[in-house]
Amino acid sequence: MHDLPALLTKIDGYAAANPFPEAPRELFEPCTYMLDLGGKRLRPALLLMAAELFSDTIDTALPAAWAVELFHNFTLMHDDIMDAAPLRRGQPTVHTRWNTTTGILSGDVMLIQAYRYLTSFSNPAVVTELVKTFSRVATEVCEGQQYDINFESRNDVALPEYIRMIELKTAVLLGGAMEMGAICAGANPADAEHLYHFGRLAGISFQIQDDLLDTYGDPAKFGKQVGGDILQNKKTFLVLKALETMPAGNRHVLETWLQTGPETPGKVDAVRAIFDQYKIPELAAAEKKRFQAEAFTQLEKVGVSEARKVALRQMIGNLLDRDR
Amino acid sequence: MHDLPALLTKIDGYAAANPFPEAPRELFEPCTYMLDLGGKRLRPALLLMAAELFSDTIDTALPAAWAVELFHNFTLMHDDIMDAAPLRRGQPTVHTRWNTTTGILSGDVMLIQAYRYLTSFSNPAVVTELVKTFSRVATEVCEGQQYDINFESRNDVALPEYIRMIELKTAVLLGGAMEMGAICAGANPADAEHLYHFGRLAGISFQIQDDLLDTYGDPAKFGKQVGGDILQNKKTFLVLKALETMPAGNRHVLETWLQTGPETPGKVDAVRAIFDQYKIPELAAAEKKRFQAEAFTQLEKVGVSEARKVALRQMIGNLLDRDR
Repeated sequence: MHDLPALLTKIDGYAAANPFPEAPRELFEPCTYMLDLGGKRLRPALLLMAAELFSDTIDTALPAAWAVELFHNFTLMHDDIMDAAPLRRGQPTVHTRWNTTTGILSGDVMLIQAYRYLTSFSNPAVVTELVKTFSRVATEVCEGQQYDINFESRNDVALPEYIRMIELKTAVLLGGAMEMGAICAGANPADAEHLYHFGRLAGISFQIQDDLLDTYGDPAKFGKQVGGDILQNKKTFLVLKALETMPAGNRHVLETWLQTGPETPGKVDAVRAIFDQYKIPELAAAEKKRFQAEAFTQLEKVGVSEARKVALRQMIGNLLDRDR
Repeated sequence: MHDLPALLTKIDGYAAANPFPEAPRELFEPCTYMLDLGGKRLRPALLLMAAELFSDTIDTALPAAWAVELFHNFTLMHDDIMDAAPLRRGQPTVHTRWNTTTGILSGDVMLIQAYRYLTSFSNPAVVTELVKTFSRVATEVCEGQQYDINFESRNDVALPEYIRMIELKTAVLLGGAMEMGAICAGANPADAEHLYHFGRLAGISFQIQDDLLDTYGDPAKFGKQVGGDILQNKKTFLVLKALETMPAGNRHVLETWLQTGPETPGKVDAVRAIFDQYKIPELAAAEKKRFQAEAFTQLEKVGVSEARKVALRQMIGNLLDRDR
């Protein structure tokens, strides 16, 4: 079995051996720039770990792993334009460093390159299944992004709608990556589907944890500014859970805070106090655990030995065990 | 054999039977809007005609035909943003009617839907070949768009570079559509390749004709304003051919005109007079005919009876026989 550093070495090696074409430079240079900004390569690593459940040779799955990473970076490039985000990982976003036209066109070609990698498998049945899964999930990611945009201008988003949005926008891609890993390794369809749900449910759990950490994370460990979501009035799991939990007559207190600007003194503490009063962090942690448990139930069902599952279980476990 | 109206009826019928999903409405409504703006459905018709060279049943090729039309509309949606175009076919462009975010995201999902249609073939070998051809051509279309953008800010574009740009940006998609039609109908790879080159070369010829008509077309027949390219200082085949043909010392006369605004009195007549002086329309027509002849040489090589080729020969012949 390969550990995470070994998988990342494989992924980096494959990427280095498969650069973008050189010309036209203006089209492909931003693609290379985007990938060079870094990132944890979580999705390709999960794809390879899923493949390794079923097969000792995972190198053949590398084109699919890289396709998923390209897709992820395509979504980031286009999302950054839609969000008018100036920075990504501390560096200028593509549309900031170049311009919107470049951000659109280089993103488009990255998505198309992702598909090209999927056609590099010698077995046409594998290509077909990969393109099907990839396209289904890619469609859902676009749908999730649209719901996320819609929610910004709505004041009546219910918690189940939010869960569905994060499921589409981010969780299904984790599930899709694992399903594709299973397909690459010749797993049966039932096992591929269990892995899809494992990744999907773990992804929802991970997003809820993300919302929790943004408000309650340890500033020393959390990469971003703790309380950022509150300052930006984001409708996170915590906000929606609070609005769902609070007596209707009290909601206006939270709603009023969420209409103030980011400079309002005491904003983070005040909103956090409301969350605390209604035990929102505990409720969120419980919901996160519920999805996590559902995810692992899916992994149980995959028809391979426990020994083969250790690495994947540990990887997802580590991702989901960041408490504060 | 089906005539063009019969093919268009098939294409419209397939489109009507395969609408976009209803939700999220904000994502898919612009896709429907874009397709409802019209268009000649040239690419899907060519794909079906290519399929009909080899097979009497062409309905099975409809998903690929529709995929190519979706791809074409995806490029239009994103190109309209890049060109800041307010109108398309006399109606507001998607990013004008909605906004840039919508134009990007709805375009993205249209491209992904195109791939989904390609996976609907029951034979995985066909799916694989279709996705390969489609992705290769789609990459080239992005490259062509990038070169087109690059050329706007360059003053030293040579004619062969221009030919290569129009080949990538528009011609390869016509070729790719025909190659995909051949793949759908189970043609052998050599015939599929001949059809690709037939469409590609005809596409270049068609683009040169387009440039000619923009300046020399009959205003009563030409859909757009005759002389529009000259008014906008576009580096068309005519301009680049003139710069190539004129003695170096005379070029500044044309170059000066091409730096003036669209309101400059007498601009179209003056530039046209320069073209006439150097016999540019005749040279362009000869070049158009050369590519046209090369195209038909490729069609000759396709290993089916002359009788089966009549419809395709006539269709491309009609497209390329608009003189003025």
